[in-house]
Amino acid sequence: MSTFTQVIAALKQAKRILIGSHYNPDGDALGSAAALGIALERQGKKVTFFNRDPVPFNLTFLPHADRFVRTLPKDASFDTVVIVDCNAAKRVGGDFEKAIKGTRVICIDHHQLEKTEGDLTILEPDAAATGVLIMRFLEEAKIPLDRILATCLFCAITVDTGSFRYSNATPDVFLLGAKLVKAGADPYEISKALEENYPAKRYRLLAKSLATLQVDEQLGIASIDVTQQMFKETGTGPDLTEEFSSFPRSIRGVEVALFFRELPDGRLKVSMRSKGHVDVAKIAAGFGGGGHVHAAGCTFEGDAAIARKKLYAALAAAIGKKGT
Amino acid sequence: MSTFTQVIAALKQAKRILIGSHYNPDGDALGSAAALGIALERQGKKVTFFNRDPVPFNLTFLPHADRFVRTLPKDASFDTVVIVDCNAAKRVGGDFEKAIKGTRVICIDHHQLEKTEGDLTILEPDAAATGVLIMRFLEEAKIPLDRILATCLFCAITVDTGSFRYSNATPDVFLLGAKLVKAGADPYEISKALEENYPAKRYRLLAKSLATLQVDEQLGIASIDVTQQMFKETGTGPDLTEEFSSFPRSIRGVEVALFFRELPDGRLKVSMRSKGHVDVAKIAAGFGGGGHVHAAGCTFEGDAAIARKKLYAALAAAIGKKGT
Repeated sequence: MSTFTQVIAALKQAKRILIGSHYNPDGDALGSAAALGIALERQGKKVTFFNRDPVPFNLTFLPHADRFVRTLPKDASFDTVVIVDCNAAKRVGGDFEKAIKGTRVICIDHHQLEKTEGDLTILEPDAAATGVLIMRFLEEAKIPLDRILATCLFCAITVDTGSFRYSNATPDVFLLGAKLVKAGADPYEISKALEENYPAKRYRLLAKSLATLQVDEQLGIASIDVTQQMFKETGTGPDLTEEFSSFPRSIRGVEVALFFRELPDGRLKVSMRSKGHVDVAKIAAGFGGGGHVHAAGCTFEGDAAIARKKLYAALAAAIGKKGT
Repeated sequence: MSTFTQVIAALKQAKRILIGSHYNPDGDALGSAAALGIALERQGKKVTFFNRDPVPFNLTFLPHADRFVRTLPKDASFDTVVIVDCNAAKRVGGDFEKAIKGTRVICIDHHQLEKTEGDLTILEPDAAATGVLIMRFLEEAKIPLDRILATCLFCAITVDTGSFRYSNATPDVFLLGAKLVKAGADPYEISKALEENYPAKRYRLLAKSLATLQVDEQLGIASIDVTQQMFKETGTGPDLTEEFSSFPRSIRGVEVALFFRELPDGRLKVSMRSKGHVDVAKIAAGFGGGGHVHAAGCTFEGDAAIARKKLYAALAAAIGKKGT
């Protein structure tokens, strides 16, 4: 692992920098990438911001959101590449892997990794967000915060701490929040952009999905479904189902929340959220999926009804109780 | 207005203290009352915690939540009364008004008031929560924070700042958050208790209510309804509709969110939420209701359909646009 001093020195030498973050980007990925890139531009660097996927509708408020490109010209050339909020070019995806061949790679991430592809890597799994690491970078590089940088970083940190609600919301994270708000980040404007920016049809879909609510009180499992028929009836797609699992999760006594989504080919996909007592990553792995202790998912092959039964059996075994 | 020093001196003399907060209590009312009372008990005072209404299901996690009484014995006698998070005995309600006759009254509140009933009053409308004022009281009284006090106060502050998301989430509020978490408040446990503690039937009701979603894009108004029929079908009541207005409010382009609730006698009640450009308190006042710029409500007499039309006309006039 590398130090901030090493990374600062490497970036000082850089001239043409490519910054990439993981596909299906969230507020930490894009907020961190934007903050770092904007700061480096102020140091006179030429910066290209890359993400394979479009900026999600609730992140278009980010300063410089329109700077993210989804493809790279064939003859694009960079002397330094920074990967933020993940550790591998394949997690960035798209043109990125090809474009960075032979280039010095720096990784800045807070995910637990098996290995890193960085020539230099700052990796702190205990950091609440990659934004926390970018903030430390700015501090050590003596790049002052302003409203633009603070907005990007507040977005990164608030998204990854669930608005200062998760167990990673430590005293230090609150102190960073204080600094960012003081530097001009506006919690109300940012949270409105992040959370009060949905198209109306999301709620028409949610109404249908919530009507499928199933609760197994014995096991402490609640589930909701979304079907292709519902997408059709409401003119929506899977991009609007983000956070749907938070509804079954909010039910008293629920330890594991399930969000089932029917795929266009009829297969069943599940997103699982655990409040901590059940390791849903382990359950998902048993069905060829993956994730974290608190959030994981998998796609079932074959009959959906059988898949559901198998999943409940696996969860019951993990919980150590027999379901209703 | 009084100083903390005056209030601390008055409470130092007190022996039998009654603490009351407003009916329909929220996390700031009960969290502030609990923190103050527990702290005073540590100073050897005899404290009675009063609230006219039951502790809401999502606040039963508060330390000493079971200490709140809803009635007072006729012969109850106190030498000092503290009213927190409101300024008038009638806002506390129940037996309180009678019980405090002839007793010295201290008010600690952050609401904008016309007048106060306190012999001593700490009133800071700029404070994000009454919990902020209780925290300052503890500091000036040199009563150290511990996990129990910090939990009560974190609850008070997080509820009134919308989890550090509202415009009152200033740098100072984040610094208080840091102190409270350091003293043992657990943001994850507290937010789970506050927000992930609903009975399943709340979501069955929400499904039905969201299915009534109406959006007027021209005016930037979205509304949902709850009817008596829905309550009946789901075995729910109005206590489970708290926060329902947040769903229409979360729609892109919506400036005013409306939550219509049918009363048992057939009349229509509306809760309005504004993102700031429309003063919904003014609109509500026009129909005999009241509230704040951002949140207000009223109950309509007579035909519900006509009432709706009148309300939309009043909103259209305030917004300065013609609706669809």
